[in-house]
Amino acid sequence: MAAAPVWSVDPRTGKRLEQVAAEATPQELDEAVRAAHASRTALADRTARIAFLRAAADLLDGSAALVVETADAETALGSGRLTGELGRTTYQLRAFADAVEEGSYLDIRIDHADPDLTPPRPGLRRYKVPLGVVAVYAASNFPLAFSVPGGDTASALAAGCPVVVKAHPDHPATSELCGALLRRAALDAGLPAAVVTVLHGFDAGLELIRHPLVAAAGFTGSIRGGRALFDAAAARPVPIPFHGELGSLNPVVVTPAAAAERAEEIGTGLAGSVTLGVGQFCVKPGLVLVPEGADGDRLADALAKTLADTGPGVLLDHRMRDNFLAGVAERAALPAVTAPVAAGPGGEHTVGAGFLSVPAGELADPAYELLLEECFGPVTVLARYDGPDEAAAVLDRLPGNLSATLQLSAAETAGGPGPAAELIGRVTRLAGRVVVNNWPTGVAVAPAQHHGGPYPAATSHSTSVGGTAIERWLRPVAYQSVPDPLLPPELQDGNPLGLPRRVTP
Amino acid sequence: MAAAPVWSVDPRTGKRLEQVAAEATPQELDEAVRAAHASRTALADRTARIAFLRAAADLLDGSAALVVETADAETALGSGRLTGELGRTTYQLRAFADAVEEGSYLDIRIDHADPDLTPPRPGLRRYKVPLGVVAVYAASNFPLAFSVPGGDTASALAAGCPVVVKAHPDHPATSELCGALLRRAALDAGLPAAVVTVLHGFDAGLELIRHPLVAAAGFTGSIRGGRALFDAAAARPVPIPFHGELGSLNPVVVTPAAAAERAEEIGTGLAGSVTLGVGQFCVKPGLVLVPEGADGDRLADALAKTLADTGPGVLLDHRMRDNFLAGVAERAALPAVTAPVAAGPGGEHTVGAGFLSVPAGELADPAYELLLEECFGPVTVLARYDGPDEAAAVLDRLPGNLSATLQLSAAETAGGPGPAAELIGRVTRLAGRVVVNNWPTGVAVAPAQHHGGPYPAATSHSTSVGGTAIERWLRPVAYQSVPDPLLPPELQDGNPLGLPRRVTP
Repeated sequence: MAAAPVWSVDPRTGKRLEQVAAEATPQELDEAVRAAHASRTALADRTARIAFLRAAADLLDGSAALVVETADAETALGSGRLTGELGRTTYQLRAFADAVEEGSYLDIRIDHADPDLTPPRPGLRRYKVPLGVVAVYAASNFPLAFSVPGGDTASALAAGCPVVVKAHPDHPATSELCGALLRRAALDAGLPAAVVTVLHGFDAGLELIRHPLVAAAGFTGSIRGGRALFDAAAARPVPIPFHGELGSLNPVVVTPAAAAERAEEIGTGLAGSVTLGVGQFCVKPGLVLVPEGADGDRLADALAKTLADTGPGVLLDHRMRDNFLAGVAERAALPAVTAPVAAGPGGEHTVGAGFLSVPAGELADPAYELLLEECFGPVTVLARYDGPDEAAAVLDRLPGNLSATLQLSAAETAGGPGPAAELIGRVTRLAGRVVVNNWPTGVAVAPAQHHGGPYPAATSHSTSVGGTAIERWLRPVAYQSVPDPLLPPELQDGNPLGLPRRVTP
Repeated sequence: MAAAPVWSVDPRTGKRLEQVAAEATPQELDEAVRAAHASRTALADRTARIAFLRAAADLLDGSAALVVETADAETALGSGRLTGELGRTTYQLRAFADAVEEGSYLDIRIDHADPDLTPPRPGLRRYKVPLGVVAVYAASNFPLAFSVPGGDTASALAAGCPVVVKAHPDHPATSELCGALLRRAALDAGLPAAVVTVLHGFDAGLELIRHPLVAAAGFTGSIRGGRALFDAAAARPVPIPFHGELGSLNPVVVTPAAAAERAEEIGTGLAGSVTLGVGQFCVKPGLVLVPEGADGDRLADALAKTLADTGPGVLLDHRMRDNFLAGVAERAALPAVTAPVAAGPGGEHTVGAGFLSVPAGELADPAYELLLEECFGPVTVLARYDGPDEAAAVLDRLPGNLSATLQLSAAETAGGPGPAAELIGRVTRLAGRVVVNNWPTGVAVAPAQHHGGPYPAATSHSTSVGGTAIERWLRPVAYQSVPDPLLPPELQDGNPLGLPRRVTP
């Protein structure tokens, strides 16, 4: 039986562009994982790893025009957005190279022996070692920053873990191109190309999580797909960590005072956040608590006006377009739901942005539970609330989220006890990132970033963006009474690598 | 239907001492979890939490005689060992209070806004928040340090998580007593008693892991029980982290040079480690690679002599005694296995220590796989090896371990490339702690400690002993563009709590 061909498809026309690869056979998958596993010793070389990450960033930057053109052809995300995403991607690679060089991610702790304690304490030295081969499941909506050369790959490689990427079917040509550049960078840095392999195919993805030599996985995608892989990871004879980012509603709360002060600005800003990238961001605001009454109406009017002025957009693929249209229709059909600006089909391959509105009190009814689930694409739901208790009741019904956003008035931001402080506490319980007077779209790559949150936002308590993303691929090891010459250099008395260490005298 | 009674039993006689409690009904379980959940707001008070942990340590110390007497009556571990264990337990409570005060466990990172970056970076401030109610499953073999007032409880409370402990049936009276002291300490510190609840019963333990308000679990026990709970935690509609310590063989490698130098000392030391606490330690050395030949024979002779001189001991309960005797018999019945000192029944309620011996080459045969599984109690297996390749082949077949120990010669500890350095690398791959010229029993409570390891040693990459154990019960949250007065004090500009923070200018 011949392996199934993998096609690159233009979402603007639905037409096949080229056959770029074939789905991996079970044997190819096994060979890729074994080769990756064998490459981990070479990847343990810190200097080579740093050089590799920087070379990868340089090669991607050097091929920017080709990468962006290739990605745009099969995602329709546009060259502006993709150029920015490539910059984010190469920044991440370089930032993780810097993190390896700096070394605090190893969380080194040294307790010197103390024979005077009861009981006497032996000498203990702890750092972190890489887990082994990491499986990365690429996202549809970020063909670069959350795919082959993205944050999961960069952080795993930085940790010293070889990577096998299961490419997303929405951008196989981009995946192949980026994979080739990463492998070339590895060779340039004196490492085996097998430190990164790109595979295609749904079945290969399932087999990958079950492979005995795979030690951990990173995933960005849907709740359904992510949960299936999470379950498979947990059911293995040797379970492995599965760091998945599955789905998020990203609630926004607009206080009455904020609506009174900035109704139009908030409505316009919300429209921009909902339609950014044709609504295909995991942090798109999907539920907005807006006060009832005239100020809330002004906000809704501004949102309506801006959405109506937004031209139709192309979604990543036709299945996504079908799901979006069905999801919007199903929500709009709920009795108390209105559609002031109907999201729906644009042309044959496009969709128009819109929003739905519902009295917040209805959300207590299980029949309206669908409104508390993510709908991927350019649509949001306004829940009009009457008083802080009604808003709080909705928030308390929400599952976990990547982000929660508050729009507050100038007086509320001045602090002190009151509804704003209470809201901060309430949304901290349900989200991984809390945003005030800003929008959740645009996730800065920075040391203090956290992109994760309670399930189903994430399947673990880790982040997939920011400096601490590297922690996912490491485990601690303590060395007890190990003579200095036998310790890894990171832990030796002389600190030959000059790493930050916490020492107990 | 009346709830099943819970009896305290004397393992020295098999006789019931007293009925100390009843198994929790589903309604009692639900009420305990809800009360714990409701107490989390009070427990968020840092000052009260610190006072509570210190008061708990003081109360336990103040009741030391009663605690040790109660624990000895139902565990037969002896007052010396139990006095030491109580000291460890109160040390842990105080160390976690200190950790809360010091604050670096919050891993605070602050990135100031930078409008000059491309794209501009918003202000981001990250710290960690408690997960919610933690379920703690107490261990049989540590009625204090890994049970009601133990490391899981102490670290969870320190993190700000209320705790519901499922007591171990081997020491229900000790569990009730310690639970009462902890609850009294909570009240003394101005906290609700519901921050700690003790429950009994197998069914209650299973229901506990499934309760929607339980946010994480810690477990110390068997592979079978731990895996069942791990699976239940992963199968929940909202999966939760399950930090379990399940089982470990704790391999020891004696190099030929070490055997030549210190055969008798190693054999005697090994006997002490194997019989400590009647072999009921999770880090008991269960497989010892000893070179073939005269030096290895001297080591085996010293081991035999010391074991033969060791008096019989009482195991924690009669089921454990039955399992130990069956486990030893099943292993001794393997064709190539000899029993130079036969472990077996002592008196009616005791067991005698012993060891088995097998040519290391046999361990490649799946029929001998049983020898690579933990046998709880005072027995170990010597695998006599012929050359480094045979030793390496055995190590590469082992599952994950809490510890791996090397006995090296003086020349080998001096370092340089060679078999010792190679062995350090090899055992680092399969264990959470690497010990040289020392024994794995005795796990120091210290900042650099790591008590965990690849599965089945642990179900996660965290530690259950040492300073970083607190990390298990926290998740990060990032605050973006949140005005200073609305930030938690930990993240405010003025740093009112004086906490360590990593700041990006």
